[in-house]
Amino acid sequence: MRYVRFEHAGERCWGLLDGDAVVALSAAPYLGGQPVGAARPLAGVRLLAPAEPSKVLCVGLNYRTHREDEQGADRVIADIIARNMQDAAPEKEPILFLKAPSALVGPGDAIVLPPQAGRVDYEAELALVIGRPLYRPASRQEALAGIFAYTCANDVSSRDVQERDVQWMRAKSFDTFCPLGPWLETGFDPADRVVEGILNGEVRQRTSTRHLLADPGQLVYFAAQAMTLLPGDLFLTGTPSGIAALTPGDRFTVRIEGIGELSNPVRAL
Amino acid sequence: MRYVRFEHAGERCWGLLDGDAVVALSAAPYLGGQPVGAARPLAGVRLLAPAEPSKVLCVGLNYRTHREDEQGADRVIADIIARNMQDAAPEKEPILFLKAPSALVGPGDAIVLPPQAGRVDYEAELALVIGRPLYRPASRQEALAGIFAYTCANDVSSRDVQERDVQWMRAKSFDTFCPLGPWLETGFDPADRVVEGILNGEVRQRTSTRHLLADPGQLVYFAAQAMTLLPGDLFLTGTPSGIAALTPGDRFTVRIEGIGELSNPVRAL
Repeated sequence: MRYVRFEHAGERCWGLLDGDAVVALSAAPYLGGQPVGAARPLAGVRLLAPAEPSKVLCVGLNYRTHREDEQGADRVIADIIARNMQDAAPEKEPILFLKAPSALVGPGDAIVLPPQAGRVDYEAELALVIGRPLYRPASRQEALAGIFAYTCANDVSSRDVQERDVQWMRAKSFDTFCPLGPWLETGFDPADRVVEGILNGEVRQRTSTRHLLADPGQLVYFAAQAMTLLPGDLFLTGTPSGIAALTPGDRFTVRIEGIGELSNPVRAL
Repeated sequence: MRYVRFEHAGERCWGLLDGDAVVALSAAPYLGGQPVGAARPLAGVRLLAPAEPSKVLCVGLNYRTHREDEQGADRVIADIIARNMQDAAPEKEPILFLKAPSALVGPGDAIVLPPQAGRVDYEAELALVIGRPLYRPASRQEALAGIFAYTCANDVSSRDVQERDVQWMRAKSFDTFCPLGPWLETGFDPADRVVEGILNGEVRQRTSTRHLLADPGQLVYFAAQAMTLLPGDLFLTGTPSGIAALTPGDRFTVRIEGIGELSNPVRAL
C-alpha cells in the first residue's frame, strides 16, 4: 500500500494512493486511519512530507561505501569521517543523531540554502517509519515487525557547520534540510534494494541496501534499547558514497527501487 | 503565572496553578488555553513534565564554571570537554544538540538507569519554553520576547555512551533522562538567578545564570537563525560545574531561584 500526506483546499491530511487517485484517511495510516470521502486526482493535490514524527533519528557512516569518501579527494568529508572513525566504532554500535522535525519538507519543495550554512551536501537515504510503540524489543525480528513503511529521504547537511560544531545536529537541521517522500510504501523488503542519488539528472550515488552496516531491523532494535520509538517516528538509515555540494538552481532526486522518486529543487535563502 | 501539566482520573491536561489549587485549561497556555471547570487541590493530581515539545534543544559547555570540571579530578568529563573545546568554539557559537522528547518525565518520576548506560550523571539546568513561531528573528530582543516561560530541567547523561558515540544524542536520550518541572513560570527574569543541583540533600552545583556564556535570548536567537522554533519547544540552557554520577537510591533535585524545585528519585532498570 502507498500512503501520502497532502494539502487540498487549505487542509492537510493523510491519504491512500490508488493509482492516480488519492482517498483521504481519517487519521495517520499507522494509527488506523480509514478512507473517508471520494477519490481525488493525485495531480490536483500538493504532496507533503509523509510523516508526523515525534523524532527524526539518523545514523552516521552506515554504508561501507560512504567510508570510501575518506580515501577520496574531498578534504572536508575526509576530516569528518576520520575524526569520527577514530573515536567511535560504527561496526559495533551505530552512531545515532537527531534531525529537528522542523527540517521536513515534501516532494517538490525547495531545499533552501541559508548564508551561514556554507557548503551544503545532499545525502540520499532509505527512511523507515515506525508503526507501533517499541521499547526494548526482545529481538531484531520484533524490531523489524514494528516498522510500518519505507520512503525516500535526503539528509541535507551543512559541512561547514558540521565541521565547526562537532555535534552534527545543527548542520543537519536547517529548515528544508529533510526532504521526505513521495509516499510511504508498506509492502517493501529492504534487504537488497538500489538507492540512488541523482544530481541534475546524473547518478552520483548508487548502492544497494545490502551494503548497510546496520540494517533497518538492527537500527530499530539498537535505538529502542535506549528510547521508546513511537508510531510515526522516522529513521534515516545512512547514505552511501558519492556525496557532493548543492548549489542554487540544482535539482536533486533520491530514487529507491521499489518505492519511487523524491525530487527537490535547490535555491538560496 | 504558573502552569502545570497533570494527570487526573486518567486524563492528561494543562492547568493553571492558583496557590494550592489547579484549574484545567482548554489547551496549552502558549496556545491560548483558557480555564475550564472547577479548581482541584494540587495534592490530588499527578504532575507531568510541563511541555509538549516538537523538539528539545540543548546547549553544551555554556557555563564558564562547567569548564572548570576539565581541570578537576574527573577524567571522563575532562576528556569529553577537552575534545570538544579543541574542535569547537562555544564562545563564538553555542554547541547545540537535541534530546529525544521521549526522554521527558515529570516531577517525582524515577530516573531509570539502564544497564548499557554505565556511568550516568545529573546536570541541573534552567529550561525555557517557546511561546510563538520564531524563524530568523531580527534581534535578540525579538528572540527573548518569543520565550513563553521557564522551568527546571535535568539533562541526565550517560558518560560512557557519550564517550563512545562522540555524538551526544543517545547518551542524553534514554527514556527518563529529561526530568522537567515542576511548572512553567511566566513572570521570570533569567538575568541573575541561582541554579542549584542537590544530590541527596547536599548542594553539589550552585551558580548564577549571569555566568551563562550565551543567555536565553542569545540561545534562541542563534538556534532560530537555522531552524523554526515552534510553540512548546524546549531549550535547556546548559549546566554549571559540580556534575557527578547518580546511583540507584539517590534523589536529585534541581532548584532555581524564582521557579521552585524539581526532584526525582533514581533507580536501576
